[in-house]
Amino acid sequence: MKISFLTLFPNFYNEFLKSKVISRAIEKGIISIDVVDIRNYSQDKHRHIDDTPYGGGAGMVMRVDVVSNAIRSNKNQDSYTILLGPKGTVFNQKVAKRLKEKKHLIFVSGHYEGIDHRISYDIDEEMSIGDYILTGGELSSQVIADSVIRILDGAIRSESTQEESFENQLLEYPQYTRPFNFEGKVVPEILLSGNHNKIRLFRLKESLRETFKKRPDLLENRNYSLEELKLLEEIKNEDKSNTDRS
Amino acid sequence: MKISFLTLFPNFYNEFLKSKVISRAIEKGIISIDVVDIRNYSQDKHRHIDDTPYGGGAGMVMRVDVVSNAIRSNKNQDSYTILLGPKGTVFNQKVAKRLKEKKHLIFVSGHYEGIDHRISYDIDEEMSIGDYILTGGELSSQVIADSVIRILDGAIRSESTQEESFENQLLEYPQYTRPFNFEGKVVPEILLSGNHNKIRLFRLKESLRETFKKRPDLLENRNYSLEELKLLEEIKNEDKSNTDRS
Repeated sequence: MKISFLTLFPNFYNEFLKSKVISRAIEKGIISIDVVDIRNYSQDKHRHIDDTPYGGGAGMVMRVDVVSNAIRSNKNQDSYTILLGPKGTVFNQKVAKRLKEKKHLIFVSGHYEGIDHRISYDIDEEMSIGDYILTGGELSSQVIADSVIRILDGAIRSESTQEESFENQLLEYPQYTRPFNFEGKVVPEILLSGNHNKIRLFRLKESLRETFKKRPDLLENRNYSLEELKLLEEIKNEDKSNTDRS
Repeated sequence: MKISFLTLFPNFYNEFLKSKVISRAIEKGIISIDVVDIRNYSQDKHRHIDDTPYGGGAGMVMRVDVVSNAIRSNKNQDSYTILLGPKGTVFNQKVAKRLKEKKHLIFVSGHYEGIDHRISYDIDEEMSIGDYILTGGELSSQVIADSVIRILDGAIRSESTQEESFENQLLEYPQYTRPFNFEGKVVPEILLSGNHNKIRLFRLKESLRETFKKRPDLLENRNYSLEELKLLEEIKNEDKSNTDRS
């Protein structure tokens, strides 16, 4: 996969490109990354890239001709162009799996009060990483790229991605490592039992418990196995007896 | 406000600290930022910070004693400690406003398969920036910090934050700047009229239209002014006449 980041602040990607998972994926040839300075596509001699908004208002708006020139100069028939912005599709793990299939992702980051609305004709999809406002699109483009790259074949060990949160619509089970006893808080005994099936059931039960407690919305429309239904019943009874006691 | 980023990869924050809004807020004395290397808080001579998970499974788990030591060494009575992770509160603009009131935010970023579950006793809140998996917490901590810092008094011009998306539960209206005509696509004439009230109404109407079309979920439980209700009626009639024509 190729990824092109179109930005006014190309340096902002320096450390991202050096980070472990990303640099390793580049070395392995799984991805190639271009960081493109939008300013180089201004056709005016002062390299202006923005101007005041029509109709008045605070701040500056990025020019459609400059940004459009930057996109068209970097795209080909395999490209999928994503504008980072609050009006877009809200990114999630399902969207990550969809983007994983693209050959070339172009991320366009706006700044200031945004990009002239007419840029929409050059964009395949507008995307947001959540319901909050950021200074620019650069962080969002890194978030999406990180999330997509790490599920590309070969980028990280595959066992790591199979038992994660949001896979299978459940939050991940709690993890423990040494020391066994930390200030009186000990690791659940069952994890030391060596009984793989009991450990698997314990973890599945804790995943279900965590998800019900913290993110019940993830469970909407989820189907349950008979094993899971049995564990849910146990959780319900435990909660009930806890309430009775209190 | 003081912000402390606890991480295994302190360099990852280099460019973030140099970015415009952040560096200016530091210069103005609105915020101070510490980047703290968790590895320095390991008490073993090889500076180990992780170990294999109890019960088996892929990857490494960060040790509770090391991370707890890092947190406790950097916190005081004003600190609010946030662990970045998929099980947490989903961050949004409302949460940003809540965090804006804190004097000291500590962001703890896990890596690998996460941090030993017992770290929860040292954490005030676990937080996620969305329903997707990232390699580590560093990007998430930058996203939250960026979003909080830019709404601190004096960090950016206040007019810029008042008309943004998610403020007032609406997406922002479309912006236009020069050139007036780009490949036959022209700026809406009303924005050139000089009539401030008409321009305001046009923008409010387009905000409502964008939100209804793209993010109707934002409008749940929203209250409307009489002016807005009139504009909504107009939008409905326009949509209807568009459908009739097609």
